[in-house]
Amino acid sequence: MGEQLNDFVHGPLDMYRDKATFDWRKLKVYLEGEDILKYKQDIYSKLQNEDCFKPTCGPQTFEEIRYQTFLQAKAYKSFKSVTEHINESTKEELATTRILTQLAPSSIPKQSVIFLNHLKKLGTHRHRQFMEDVYKNKVTGCFCLTEIGHGSNLKGFGTRAVYSKEKKVFTINTPNFESAKCWAGCLGQTATHAVVFANLEIDDKQYGLQSFIVPIRDVNTLLPFAGIIVGDMGEKTGLNGVDNGFILFKNYEIPRENLLDKLCDVTEDGLFILKVKDLESHKEKSRIALSIARISTVARNECLGTKGLVVAVRYAAVRKQFGPGDGPEVCLLEYQTHQYRLFPYLAAAIVFKNTWMYLADVQDNLDFYSKNRICNVSLASELHAIACGAKAISGWTMRDVIQGCREACGGHGYLKVSGFDDTRSAQDAVLTYDGENYVLLQQTSNILIKLWPLIVRNQKISSPLESFDFLSNGDNLLREGRFTIKTVKELFNQTYILYIYDWLVVYLIKSSAEKLENQNKQSEFWVQSDNQIFYAKDLAVTYIERLFLLKMLNLINNAPDKKIQEALTDMFFLYALWNIRNHMPVLYQGGFASNRLISMLVKEGILKLLGRIKNNAIALVDAIAPPDFLLNSVLGYSDGQVYKHLESAFLRFPNGLSRPTWWKEVLDSEQIPSKL
Amino acid sequence: MGEQLNDFVHGPLDMYRDKATFDWRKLKVYLEGEDILKYKQDIYSKLQNEDCFKPTCGPQTFEEIRYQTFLQAKAYKSFKSVTEHINESTKEELATTRILTQLAPSSIPKQSVIFLNHLKKLGTHRHRQFMEDVYKNKVTGCFCLTEIGHGSNLKGFGTRAVYSKEKKVFTINTPNFESAKCWAGCLGQTATHAVVFANLEIDDKQYGLQSFIVPIRDVNTLLPFAGIIVGDMGEKTGLNGVDNGFILFKNYEIPRENLLDKLCDVTEDGLFILKVKDLESHKEKSRIALSIARISTVARNECLGTKGLVVAVRYAAVRKQFGPGDGPEVCLLEYQTHQYRLFPYLAAAIVFKNTWMYLADVQDNLDFYSKNRICNVSLASELHAIACGAKAISGWTMRDVIQGCREACGGHGYLKVSGFDDTRSAQDAVLTYDGENYVLLQQTSNILIKLWPLIVRNQKISSPLESFDFLSNGDNLLREGRFTIKTVKELFNQTYILYIYDWLVVYLIKSSAEKLENQNKQSEFWVQSDNQIFYAKDLAVTYIERLFLLKMLNLINNAPDKKIQEALTDMFFLYALWNIRNHMPVLYQGGFASNRLISMLVKEGILKLLGRIKNNAIALVDAIAPPDFLLNSVLGYSDGQVYKHLESAFLRFPNGLSRPTWWKEVLDSEQIPSKL
Repeated sequence: MGEQLNDFVHGPLDMYRDKATFDWRKLKVYLEGEDILKYKQDIYSKLQNEDCFKPTCGPQTFEEIRYQTFLQAKAYKSFKSVTEHINESTKEELATTRILTQLAPSSIPKQSVIFLNHLKKLGTHRHRQFMEDVYKNKVTGCFCLTEIGHGSNLKGFGTRAVYSKEKKVFTINTPNFESAKCWAGCLGQTATHAVVFANLEIDDKQYGLQSFIVPIRDVNTLLPFAGIIVGDMGEKTGLNGVDNGFILFKNYEIPRENLLDKLCDVTEDGLFILKVKDLESHKEKSRIALSIARISTVARNECLGTKGLVVAVRYAAVRKQFGPGDGPEVCLLEYQTHQYRLFPYLAAAIVFKNTWMYLADVQDNLDFYSKNRICNVSLASELHAIACGAKAISGWTMRDVIQGCREACGGHGYLKVSGFDDTRSAQDAVLTYDGENYVLLQQTSNILIKLWPLIVRNQKISSPLESFDFLSNGDNLLREGRFTIKTVKELFNQTYILYIYDWLVVYLIKSSAEKLENQNKQSEFWVQSDNQIFYAKDLAVTYIERLFLLKMLNLINNAPDKKIQEALTDMFFLYALWNIRNHMPVLYQGGFASNRLISMLVKEGILKLLGRIKNNAIALVDAIAPPDFLLNSVLGYSDGQVYKHLESAFLRFPNGLSRPTWWKEVLDSEQIPSKL
Repeated sequence: MGEQLNDFVHGPLDMYRDKATFDWRKLKVYLEGEDILKYKQDIYSKLQNEDCFKPTCGPQTFEEIRYQTFLQAKAYKSFKSVTEHINESTKEELATTRILTQLAPSSIPKQSVIFLNHLKKLGTHRHRQFMEDVYKNKVTGCFCLTEIGHGSNLKGFGTRAVYSKEKKVFTINTPNFESAKCWAGCLGQTATHAVVFANLEIDDKQYGLQSFIVPIRDVNTLLPFAGIIVGDMGEKTGLNGVDNGFILFKNYEIPRENLLDKLCDVTEDGLFILKVKDLESHKEKSRIALSIARISTVARNECLGTKGLVVAVRYAAVRKQFGPGDGPEVCLLEYQTHQYRLFPYLAAAIVFKNTWMYLADVQDNLDFYSKNRICNVSLASELHAIACGAKAISGWTMRDVIQGCREACGGHGYLKVSGFDDTRSAQDAVLTYDGENYVLLQQTSNILIKLWPLIVRNQKISSPLESFDFLSNGDNLLREGRFTIKTVKELFNQTYILYIYDWLVVYLIKSSAEKLENQNKQSEFWVQSDNQIFYAKDLAVTYIERLFLLKMLNLINNAPDKKIQEALTDMFFLYALWNIRNHMPVLYQGGFASNRLISMLVKEGILKLLGRIKNNAIALVDAIAPPDFLLNSVLGYSDGQVYKHLESAFLRFPNGLSRPTWWKEVLDSEQIPSKL
């Protein structure tokens, strides 16, 4: 059975399902789209036929996890050919990514995807054979960029590739352990080839970081070649199915043709040649490609957070605790504290889902967006600003969602069968891969701060996705921006919420830019670095939150009926007010707010929303929930039979009802010698 | 080697060690006390002689973890007899708890401690034999309170014990799976006896929740008795060495004498008798005992957070990334963002350490504190308010510390050998045991809100530990409390910081109390419940933070030299300002702040502190760091040789340099059938 669209089994969740003001099925179809639902259905039915995707019972050893992941990746490849993937839309691609992330996250890096993408991007006909061998499963490829002692800063890399005219080869060397390549998925035990980044050197002259295809293991024996030390990085917090590896090269020679030569090449006699004329345009394309990869992390964050959320909200509708007087106990969902713990997260999950779907749509229509208007900010820059910021914020928010939901399930959330441990472990990885979050936010704020001179001069600002356009009004906002509202009712106004955010972004651009100007005695590097906390970082955060909210308006306006529109509007306001609370010091500092009203109204607004969302929470969760076999949590299945599933999990646990094998030692009290 | 007091090995951390303004050794001795350092030294040397406490290499199976924990608990018992424990001071007891929590957290619940404590508290001579059998290791005892479907609310419990006059036995029954006892440590596989809470019933009349000693497994075979279904709860996020279990009783008979009868008894012919006259005084004692257990969780939270913190701060002093211009890369510790990520956590760790040590001191001098003054609030209530709140806040803060530190270590923080995964998993359990954090904070705020009528009437308020005394001035604070400061220099004033907190607490008492009064049309239960978010919860938080800061003043004032005093003062202010930022909306809403100054000064103050703390961070961390064998993290050892330890961890990883055993399947590309 796939994505639930039929009625749910009757049970403990009926009470809240009956209270919902809207049709969850209609919302689900609206959020996903008929075509994607059908597409997912097809994948589900295939996955369910494979034993390796069935949930295991009881603890697995490290070896078992590795082997199961290998089988999963293999099974997936068998029913989803690479050529098929190429013709997919971004939405379809991300639907696949979400499914695997929720079901078997380790299996994703096992599919040579980054290796292939990089070959497509920077390789030429010289490297076509490697790609074909990947399609034929003869070659497993991995991607070696990061070094042990060097992460985000590419300039610090130590790996070198020196060209020898005599031998017509590049000789790769790793000068020390800090320069060992690491973290590459599949490198640890299984990859036969790697794309390796190294500093190119010809005749003692440096030609920057270039990438090479490097054979690392014999395709017939899977044993590494001489001149290489390659191994596994060992156990991790999660994703242990992936054999992340490290590699050191010692005078390791590869043919000249293995340089990926779309942009540049080295001739037989050692001449370095640039092959691309319009390097800038190539860089733009690269940035767009990188942004798209980051958009995929937003979807990953969202789908893992959603998994935790579905479990916690359903559990809260079943679990009873305390109650007034001598009456019966009431559901956790009835308590204000519990609503506050869960509903802002629910809003965030829906807001993020809407955002990555919008960005996927942009990606599928790049030509349209890059040509339609004259802009101050290029599409590449705008996508970069959005993708960097959205990756960081979706990561941190969904980290808190998963942890908050785990705690909201009490002690039972600590059980492996609740699913939280695996979900958290998988999401934790996203927080530090694909760019360090603070560094990413700095990318976003840098793009924004550069617009300050235009704002000052009251110039029109526009960008292909229109996320910068409001800055045209920046000067006016700064002069006249004031919180003028007196009632909660007035606060529940979408335009006004965006107005608050408009002011926040412009004010933070102003204060960040001014801080930079005022400190220009120091070196620019340290001035920028000292401008992050409270200024540039907050700027990036407010810009992204504003974009999230802006895009929610489309979702709200096109809703299929009024009830769904109202439910989504509640999500909009809760996400907004919950975040505006964090920006309160800025609102006061900048003079936007000056009396106690905003503090009070935002609080009141949030409390009002919590009470309103209560009866819709289960229906909202039903609309975004994955099917039960992906959810895989005794506390969160769609039938709400928490205790039945818990009982059966306990009884199924291997040896759960037996003595330990070493039971005699427990009794052997005489064996305890006194060491005193 | 034990707690470091000698010089550290020279290496990458020298640079910052040399820059410190104070002597870390002197601070360490001051924080811990000579006697506790000696006491710990003694335990370290014993632990290091035991193989079972040595770090394992590579992944362990579930069975191996269980067995190792059993050996650890056994070894610990062998060199630390139970009688010895009885004579220990609370500080010594908590020193032990901290060491085991940092080194082998699963081994703590394996020592029948709660079972014994409960027997001491509610048992009589009738139960002495059970205690002696525990001392002799003939009996393993566990504690069964929580039920599967009922946590904090004891009223909801379903387990029943019915007395039969004919047979002179209690018959225990579990009506359904929701009423199965659960989570008891050792119950899963090893306990022979349990203290079980059940609703007592005689002749169809209810006599409330009572506790009984129940034999559950044969002490000769470790097999469960008939009439019992007992089993293991399976794999968990962490603490897998503990066999947490569940148990169901079916017409299970136990002798009349097994009722723990210090407070009440049932005569042979079924008469229920209360044995204690002063039940109130007994309840007071129980509350104090419960509070003391909660103080231990503060120490557990602190020591796990500290572990993560030591790793991240040392790593930040070694790890280099980016830098100005073409110069060399600089340490992460130099970056403002990184300082902001770590230093508030450093402050929190020291503040919490100071708090639990103060509370341990109170516990060791209960007689003094309970008799010394005439008070409006009893010692039991005050300790309850403090312990409940401190448990919740130390739990959440240290959760964020560990996660923040994990992220601050980048990708390498995801490696098991970094230690973060185990630390987080152990701390995660604390978040939901020993009381649900939101319920606990409600306990704290309830005690505070009750004082509102006294405040209104301008009455003197005093409490044994003096944490409520400032409320005597409450009315005045509310009338005159205003933020009047104009410079950061003025803000760096301990008295003024406490003044801000005084106002916050009183204002939140007022608004919470008024919210309750204004809503008294509804049932009291729901009014209270709807008063939590933004009101009662914030009240509890500010009261506890204020107490933390107040107790820091003692630590600062008695510091052995001026340099240490300054370093600790920085911790005081950073902890204060970092938290005051969160309370900004309340400060504005209540009219304490009315212009932009407070927002600006708090920000500026924090930034100033970050820069000042930078050169002391390593010395501060050295002063609170556990010895390397407890720290057990390749990224955080005291020699700072991050890359050397990483390299050796990779090379030692079992089979890390080999092919997988199933390598042939990787190559066997033909095996992939197309399912399309």
